Amino acid sequence: MNFLTKLDKVITNNDSLLCVGLDPDINKIPPHIASQKDAFFIFNKAIIDTTSNLVCAYKPNSAMYEAAGEDGITQLKKTCDYINETYPKIPIILDFKRADIGNTNNYYASFAFNYLNVDAITINPYMGKTANNEFLSYKDKGIIVLCRTSNPGAGEFQDLIIDGKPLYQHVAKNIIDSWNTNDNCLLVMGATYADELAQVRKIVGPNMVFLVPGVGAQGGDVKSFVKAGIGANKRGLIINSSRDILYSSNGKDFADAAKAKAQEIRNTINNYR
Amino acid sequence: MNFLTKLDKVITNNDSLLCVGLDPDINKIPPHIASQKDAFFIFNKAIIDTTSNLVCAYKPNSAMYEAAGEDGITQLKKTCDYINETYPKIPIILDFKRADIGNTNNYYASFAFNYLNVDAITINPYMGKTANNEFLSYKDKGIIVLCRTSNPGAGEFQDLIIDGKPLYQHVAKNIIDSWNTNDNCLLVMGATYADELAQVRKIVGPNMVFLVPGVGAQGGDVKSFVKAGIGANKRGLIINSSRDILYSSNGKDFADAAKAKAQEIRNTINNYR
Repeated sequence: MNFLTKLDKVITNNDSLLCVGLDPDINKIPPHIASQKDAFFIFNKAIIDTTSNLVCAYKPNSAMYEAAGEDGITQLKKTCDYINETYPKIPIILDFKRADIGNTNNYYASFAFNYLNVDAITINPYMGKTANNEFLSYKDKGIIVLCRTSNPGAGEFQDLIIDGKPLYQHVAKNIIDSWNTNDNCLLVMGATYADELAQVRKIVGPNMVFLVPGVGAQGGDVKSFVKAGIGANKRGLIINSSRDILYSSNGKDFADAAKAKAQEIRNTINNYR
Repeated sequence: MNFLTKLDKVITNNDSLLCVGLDPDINKIPPHIASQKDAFFIFNKAIIDTTSNLVCAYKPNSAMYEAAGEDGITQLKKTCDYINETYPKIPIILDFKRADIGNTNNYYASFAFNYLNVDAITINPYMGKTANNEFLSYKDKGIIVLCRTSNPGAGEFQDLIIDGKPLYQHVAKNIIDSWNTNDNCLLVMGATYADELAQVRKIVGPNMVFLVPGVGAQGGDVKSFVKAGIGANKRGLIINSSRDILYSSNGKDFADAAKAKAQEIRNTINNYR
């Protein structure tokens, strides 16, 4: 199913804009899990099972799996397979922020869409649209382009002024004007900059969906960025939280603690929609 | 050993600025290899064994391995292990063009420097220096930042004018002025734009090394970009060729054909140094 359609349905069913980032860290996972083979998968599975009716998407970040080598990649695949088989209505966003020349992007697309079978990916705009056509041509997949990120120092290049407007606004404008011919583009917009969020919402209109990282561990005030970024039908945002949910507890109750935290964040978001 | 020192020594020993891109494609590898288990590794090993005295570096692109899932990652590791054990004087550049927030970059660095044990990586500048400090803090590793890439459409953002200068020149200036405090930064500069190469050489001075992709399959005129980009001591360039060398022949002579092609490109480069 088309990613945006799938997303829309699960937002309705779970009444949620919350995305849980599946970013397992062997040093933060509860010890009774960390000591097991397939610790990442066991941990993810428990988190998924307690939060599946609270989220609009899951977002594994490939970095955490790559750091564990081929075994990490196996566990990433197991995680995606588990979601696709057990919770096929919930879309998976692979956060891998790739971009290379066109021919090479075909291989990254194959990793994401054939091997892992995810519904959406994050990519980097620096090399331009033509290089990214290989990603954009997947009409049913979500292609989420970095626009304004939430990290300290993100403005070094993203805020440089071209014709009176910062680079990230040019990125937003090009995405809506020329990258989005298949209606499958989304933007990464950091939660720590509500003003920027509002300006980009104005540029791209009410229907484009933003992936907003930075809730919780990265800071960001829920009320201000929901007000600033909300789109049509009180939607248009996928709000990610990772560490605050995953590591709510380090004990045997970690999955229930994650559920409680996910519920809390979902409800806070819904209060301001 | 420090990457730039290792690079300098092998440039001397092999009298070469040529880097061979290890980008195995199951559809282009000779059939008698492609049909075997570990085809990527067997193919790479044969290419490495015939070209090891002709190159200054090897550069696997992670995309090709990722597309093959956990088995591809295993073969990437085997390839890196083989080079490190058999040809320890030749540096390995992992072309993975990553960049995320700082905490996440630690995991990408771990994949590259701990798991694969490579000497250098390519990264994307869009998220700014602060996010990339985790990479830059590896003082002995080469951190190769995308500046002006060689793909069609690369100018969409890279050529936008800020204060009279294109974005990629601002990237170059920031790298030399503030990213390079550990003297471990290099730049990716596409071979198809000799003028840009010359301007960036002026900005960063004679000692910064450029990784130049785009020789062969991506076009690029060797004479013009060597003249435009060459640095101190007739060095300062790592010139990559992948497909033209790897797939010179589709038969049992593929490794010898690759050697002949590598020799030809190395010599052509040396003619213009």
